[in-house]
Formats: sequence, C-alpha cells, structure tokens
Amino acid sequence: MKIDLNADLGEGFGPYQMGDDDALIPILSSANVACGFHAGDPLIMRNTVRSTKFSGVDLGAHVGFADVQGFGRNKMELPLAELESLVTYQLGALAGFARSEGHTLTHMSFHGALGNKVAADNELAEALINTVAKFDSDLIISSSSSVAIESAAQRHGLRVETTFLADRAYDASGLLVPRAKANSVIKDEKQVLQRIEQLLNDGTVTCYDGERIAMPARSILVHGDTDGAVNLAAKIRRYIEDNGGVITPLSLLVN
Amino acid sequence: MKIDLNADLGEGFGPYQMGDDDALIPILSSANVACGFHAGDPLIMRNTVRSTKFSGVDLGAHVGFADVQGFGRNKMELPLAELESLVTYQLGALAGFARSEGHTLTHMSFHGALGNKVAADNELAEALINTVAKFDSDLIISSSSSVAIESAAQRHGLRVETTFLADRAYDASGLLVPRAKANSVIKDEKQVLQRIEQLLNDGTVTCYDGERIAMPARSILVHGDTDGAVNLAAKIRRYIEDNGGVITPLSLLVN
Amino acid sequence: MKIDLNADLGEGFGPYQMGDDDALIPILSSANVACGFHAGDPLIMRNTVRSTKFSGVDLGAHVGFADVQGFGRNKMELPLAELESLVTYQLGALAGFARSEGHTLTHMSFHGALGNKVAADNELAEALINTVAKFDSDLIISSSSSVAIESAAQRHGLRVETTFLADRAYDASGLLVPRAKANSVIKDEKQVLQRIEQLLNDGTVTCYDGERIAMPARSILVHGDTDGAVNLAAKIRRYIEDNGGVITPLSLLVN
Amino acid sequence: MKIDLNADLGEGFGPYQMGDDDALIPILSSANVACGFHAGDPLIMRNTVRSTKFSGVDLGAHVGFADVQGFGRNKMELPLAELESLVTYQLGALAGFARSEGHTLTHMSFHGALGNKVAADNELAEALINTVAKFDSDLIISSSSSVAIESAAQRHGLRVETTFLADRAYDASGLLVPRAKANSVIKDEKQVLQRIEQLLNDGTVTCYDGERIAMPARSILVHGDTDGAVNLAAKIRRYIEDNGGVITPLSLLVN
Repeated sequence: MKIDLNADLGEGFGPYQMGDDDALIPILSSANVACGFHAGDPLIMRNTVRSTKFSGVDLGAHVGFADVQGFGRNKMELPLAELESLVTYQLGALAGFARSEGHTLTHMSFHGALGNKVAADNELAEALINTVAKFDSDLIISSSSSVAIESAAQRHGLRVETTFLADRAYDASGLLVPRAKANSVIKDEKQVLQRIEQLLNDGTVTCYDGERIAMPARSILVHGDTDGAVNLAAKIRRYIEDNGGVITPLSLLVN
Repeated sequence: MKIDLNADLGEGFGPYQMGDDDALIPILSSANVACGFHAGDPLIMRNTVRSTKFSGVDLGAHVGFADVQGFGRNKMELPLAELESLVTYQLGALAGFARSEGHTLTHMSFHGALGNKVAADNELAEALINTVAKFDSDLIISSSSSVAIESAAQRHGLRVETTFLADRAYDASGLLVPRAKANSVIKDEKQVLQRIEQLLNDGTVTCYDGERIAMPARSILVHGDTDGAVNLAAKIRRYIEDNGGVITPLSLLVN
Repeated sequence: MKIDLNADLGEGFGPYQMGDDDALIPILSSANVACGFHAGDPLIMRNTVRSTKFSGVDLGAHVGFADVQGFGRNKMELPLAELESLVTYQLGALAGFARSEGHTLTHMSFHGALGNKVAADNELAEALINTVAKFDSDLIISSSSSVAIESAAQRHGLRVETTFLADRAYDASGLLVPRAKANSVIKDEKQVLQRIEQLLNDGTVTCYDGERIAMPARSILVHGDTDGAVNLAAKIRRYIEDNGGVITPLSLLVN
Repeated sequence: MKIDLNADLGEGFGPYQMGDDDALIPILSSANVACGFHAGDPLIMRNTVRSTKFSGVDLGAHVGFADVQGFGRNKMELPLAELESLVTYQLGALAGFARSEGHTLTHMSFHGALGNKVAADNELAEALINTVAKFDSDLIISSSSSVAIESAAQRHGLRVETTFLADRAYDASGLLVPRAKANSVIKDEKQVLQRIEQLLNDGTVTCYDGERIAMPARSILVHGDTDGAVNLAAKIRRYIEDNGGVITPLSLLVN
C-alpha cells in the first residue's frame, strides 16, 4: 500500500518563519510550496526547492490569493482572467526554481480561500484546471475531495490525487468545514491518528455531523505550522509504515 | 543589415496604463516585458505575451527590483541570495506565460536601478548572469553596453546583444548617464534619429562629454512611455528600412 | 442654495497618474483623497493635501480595501477587527498630512467594494461608523444614499452628507448599481447634466428601472478619471452657479 | 535616577508573530511600535496601542522603509520628498490609533536601514526631523547616539532622548556597528547586563575597537525578538530597580 505524506511548506515571509520545514521535509514524500502570493518569497522558495530536492521529496506549487497579510484565507472576488493569470504566474515562478535547481514540478494544489472556492464552484474549477493544463498537462492536481475539481481534471486529462487532511473536519459532501466554524480544526493528536487509522483500514472519514463517508485518498496532508507538527508527522509516518504502508511521492503513487 | 527594434512593455499595473503597447508591438521585433516586480501584474503579463506572440515579436523578461511604487528606479541593497532569487522568480513567472500561450522566452534584460547596478559591478554581474544561465542557458542577455555583463555572459556561454538606447546619454565608458542628471534623457526627436543614423553608419555614439565611442549594437531600444513614442518608433523603423536594414528579432540576429 | 462639488483625488500610484487633479481641484469645493490602500501613496497624499489647502477645498479621507492592483473594487471578506483597523489607519495617515500641512480633515467616505459593502450592511455600517466616531466625532460622512450608513451615523452623532453620483445609475432602494452591470456608468455628458438639473429642481433621480426616487443630496460627486472629466466638472459648476447655486465645501453646507 | 526601558514592538505581520509583546509590555516603560511599513499591520497596531495604554507604557512610532520582506533592513535610496512623506504617513497612522484608543503618541524613532542613514547623514536628519516637527513638535525623538539627529532636533526645538542598545556594538563615533559585521550583536546575557552596569555607573560604553566613550543615555532599549528576550528584560529591570533606579516612561524623564 503506497501512501503519500505531504505538507504545505515555504510559508514564511522575509524575516518570519512558519513551521520547521527543515525538520519536516525528511519525514514527507511530497511538499506543496507557497509561491509568494499568500506566503513565501523568492529566497524562501529557492531554499525550499533545494531542500525538497535534497530529500527526494516531490515538489508542488501551492497557489493562493495575493494576500500575505491574510495568509490567503480571506475570500476575494476577482475577475476570472485575473484568477487564471495568478495561477499561471505562481506555477511559472516555482517551476523556474525547479528548473534552476534541477528539480521537477510534479503537482499543484490550491490554497486557503482560493482552494475552498475552486473546490465548490464548477465553473471556476473548469477555468483554473484548464489554466493548469495549458501550463503543464503532466501536473498532478493534489486536492481535498471535490467533485468540481475531479470532473474538471478528468475533462482536461489531468490526474487528481485526493489528499486527506487528517486534522480538518469534513462535511457530508466531502468538502472541508470552514476554519471559522468551531471544531473545524482537530487539535487532539490521538483523534488525528485515529482518523488516519480509519482512512487506511476503512477508506472512510467520519464527518462533522457524524456521518461516515467514503474518502478514497492515498495521500495524507499534515500541517506544519502547529505546535508538535513535526512529532505528529513522524508518528503518522511510523504508523503507516508499521501497518505495511510505503511512503511514496505523489508522482509515484501510480505508474 | 539586420537590426532589432525593441521596447520595454507591460509596464502598467492594475488599473494604470503606461504606454500604448497595442500600437507599439507591431512596430517592434522584440519586447522586454515587466514581470510584476517593478511593474506589470499577472494579467498584464498574460495579455502582453499574447500580443507579442500574435505579432511575431520576440519575448524577453525585464527583471527589476520589487518596487512598483518606485518603478524599480530606486537603488536598493539586497543580500546576493535575495537578488539571485528574484531574478529566477521573474524569469520563471514570465516563462510560465510563454509556455501557457505557446510562445518562447528568448531573452532577458535588467531594469532600472538593478540594471545600472549589474552593468557596473563585476561581482554582481557574475552572480546574476550565472543565475540566468542556471535557469536557461539559451537565453540571450539584452543589455546596454557593459563590460561586466559581457564578460560574465562570455564565461557562462550566454549570448549578449548590446542594445542602444537612442534617447539616453552615455558616458565615456559606455554606461548610461543616470536619469537624475540633466540632459540624460534626450527628448528631441530629431536628435534621437540623428543618433540612430550615426550608430548605423558609423557604429559610434557621441557621449555626454562630447567624446565619440564605439557602440557595437545591432539592437535599438525605444521607450514606449513618452509622448509621441509610437510615432517615433515608427519613424525609426522606417528610417532603418529605408536605409536597407531589416527589422529582425533578437533571436534571429545571428544564426 | 449651497451645493458641494467633490471628486475622488490622489488616485495615482508611484509613476502612475489617474485623472488631472491639478486641473480639477480649483473647480471643486471638496476632495476625497485616497490613503494608499486602494490607490495613492505617501508623496501623492502630501501633494494632494497641499493642493486642496491651496485652493481652499475641503479635505476628506477616501478609505478602501488594501488592493492597489484591483483599485479597491474587488470584493474581499475580512474579519471585522481588520476592517475597523484599516479604517483607523487610513484616517490617521491622511489626518497626519493635514496636520503637517496646516489643513483640516473634514470628512471621510468609503471607496469601491468596501463602500458598496458598508452601504448595504447594517452591522458593518454600525461597526465602521463607530470606528470613525472613535477617531474623530466631528468628521462628516460623505456617502451615496444608504439607510445603513445614515442610521449608524445618527446613532453615533455623526453628520452625513449624501453625495449624488451624477454618472452612476441607482436602483430603487437608492443604492448604486454595480459597475459590472451594463449602463451602470453614464457616459453621455448631456444625460449627466440633465440628471443634475433634475436633482436640483426636483430633488429626485430616475432609477435604473425607470422609477423616480427622492435624492436629498446637496453634494455632487464628479469622477476625475474619465476623458473630459475636467470639462464636465467645469460645466456642472457653471450650471449650478448659473442657476443660483453657491459652490460650498461640505463642512460649510450647514452652520 | 530615572531610567526608561523600551523595546520595538508590534513587529509581527498578518499571521506572523515576532517577539512576545504581551509578556514584554508590562516590563517596559516605553514602546516603539512598527507602523506597517517595515513590519506591523493595522490590526497589530491597534492591539499594540491598546496593550501599551493598558499597561501605562509610553507610545512611540517606529518609522522605517516600506519593506516588510526585508524588515526595513535593506538600504534604499529614495527621493527626499518620498522619505519625508513616508515619515508623516507612519506618524499619522499610529497617531490615529492613539487617538481612537485614548492613548497619546509621545515619541518616535527611526528603524533599521532608515535609522542608520538618518543617524549618519546631517542633511537627511535635518529634513526628516523637520518633518517630525511639522507633524507634532511635542514628539520626543528616541535615538541611539547621533550628532546629526541631535543637532537637527535642537534646531527644531525637539527633545531627543538617547537610547542605549545594550546588545549592539558601537563604533568610536557612537554609531551602531552594522548588523552584517561579526559580533555587532551581543548575545551573551552576562555581557549585556555588564554593559548596562557600566552605563549606569560610569555613563560610558566600551566600543567595538575597545575604546571607552561617553554614552549620556537614560533610556535603554531591549530587543524583543530574540530567545530569552523577556527574561533578559526582566533581569535588566530588576537590576536597575535594585540599584536605586526608577523605571520611567520617556515623556516623564524630565519635567
């Protein structure tokens, strides 16, 4: 059983750090790297690309709204052409570092408020997945479960890997419960590990309202910016490996 | 006699326009496009890439300091790693649009205060030309005359095309006279045309202090943000063609 | 009959100009000056404050979202505390220039997407008008007609002056028709002048759907960033004066 | 013996924290608050103003270059009118929060690269101190020792309080040794306390090159962004109080 373990990285900005990327990267198989819009800056991007290459970790672009102050979590309504362009810009910028550092851009994902919007809006998903495909049709879309994204990707011949957010609550349609809601972020380590156990053994997740829904994910996202994140990631990795799983980068989940 | 005619384009920002790119592009053979740091934004970049492709104009990245408010003209001292990273970032972002739109990034140039610094600083030129080479060793460096840039490019196997700024005064070492100095920008149309005549017939330019120096340029840069810029560009193009020149994109100046 | 004639000014950014403020200011009695968030920058603000003081024009703060690229016209959802804080920040910044230049901040208005949101949302209007009152309870709120803003201002003891946007369509509730809708911006000069005539003689405006509603405004806003704006403003001023009106700054409309 | 103990606060940005302001503020008598240019944002400013008011701590504006990514530490060359305007803008913005929260702006200081420049450049000091005086001639200038700043302040009738940076090396002229130089930042706690002892008992500091120079400071700045900063500040406060000093806000150092 191949399982990808990934995290959002490079989320610092200038003098500010977020998460301990250096400690986290060797535990992961894939990384989603901020591209300077919701977080990150050129130097942080270069350093993160170097670290992922050094550790043999798959490199993905984590694409968000241009809003470092709001960390890309504030809803914004932009004209579609602006949205398409900011996707291409961020993909290009990170791909530039991959090229310069001899690494490869294997995947992309949408961050925060942009991610929530794309996951729930068929028309937007169609437009932005098309934008990704025009940039590089070999890119894998890494996404929490979303019919909008999955169907758009299928139309454009892009592979989607559903990533399971072990510490975030889901609603019955498989979408993430917004952070503003109470208990949408699961902070209890035991509960997080239990959810992963359920995912691996049963292929399901228990939703916010108690319902159990299918969660066909072979990729797990851990958050790096919380206290104890590195320890938790290490425990998750050990749990997976102890149960016969093989930690595998996104691009190698299928051949 | 092949001559490239180029201009700095895509220098608007959000609601603000600078220059009439649509009118200028068909007159040019090459374009240097702002990458969102000193000017430009993702949508403007996409539109400019589309227009250059449509008109068969060579596409270059115009790389500058991150300072839209100062238009990249304020001197900044950044750590070298930051400078290298902002070069890669901008090259990647514009290359992303080229890729998405089916166009090709053929060249790059340094803008404003960054350009002046690189042109006059051997160590910086070495580092940043190396950065360009690591990104894409086929890129042509388009630059006003600079020993620092030319020798660094030679070491890294990059082609340099000297571009002649018809409306900017030169000092005796071939560097541009800073804009802050009186008469550093030549606004008289007749004088501009006369300087081009001298370049084409004599391969020289008359400097700020009256000295005549060699100017081995087969590329001419016109500024698009001044009144009458489009007319002047058209006149320059006609003058060159009337005198047997063939307007030729940078990438085709040599075979 | 006292009538205030005002416009949104200082909407350039760095090298970019928007509108011909120097020509417009002497025609106006009040100015709404961008505070560096949706447009403007510190130097532009200083210069605009100086010009308004020189011409005896009332100075107001035009407060918007932090989004120069989108000119403050993109909808954003921010936590309330962020919104309150960006209002205080902008009021303070412009008041600082007023203080330094010996001028007075007499009024404020909300710009673009923020303005539309406040005008239509009672809870938000209550919070942000309270924020204005905490900063300076003598400030006049200049606003297009909005029950939300008017009632909040009344609760906090702030004076509101309804400003009539001569070139923007209204809906039957007195709110502005969004710019995205066809014909929401009236470009025909004759029609604009006719609407002012109707306002002055009849105290009404004919809405988007043909209905005629009361428009109790003694303040008229002209847009400075359109072609012919200065001429139109001059014509409006002359029309008002020819019909017995006295162009009067906002702060002097009542005693 | 009255001694002011102050620190640079509000240096976070959006989701990023720097230093533990909540723990530090009750130990201090004065605070220098970032104004959103080199660090800070409107909400952080509001919260920091509230905390300083709650703890009876003097409020100052910490004014820097517009460069959050570089934390205001990169040298920039801006036209003088731009520099003057960014000073007024930041003073006004923070004064706005003071006004809204019922606190008072008592002082200001220059941050990072701007601070180094002003401290060493007579002409710039003259211009920017004049700018401060035009905004509010009651503001105290808090500054590390600088003849340029002190003489400009004297000419404009502004009070200067020299603040001693206990953990930064000085050169023989009393200016700070740039951070880029080895050992310019003193990290050994014992050494920091010893330097304060020498200041209080002897009125001197031992310079980078071993020379002992006069340091007529009755204000001490501690850095809040280093590990153990809060503990060190508490130790410094205790040392001062144990030796008969009274921790006193800047504005009350003299009557």
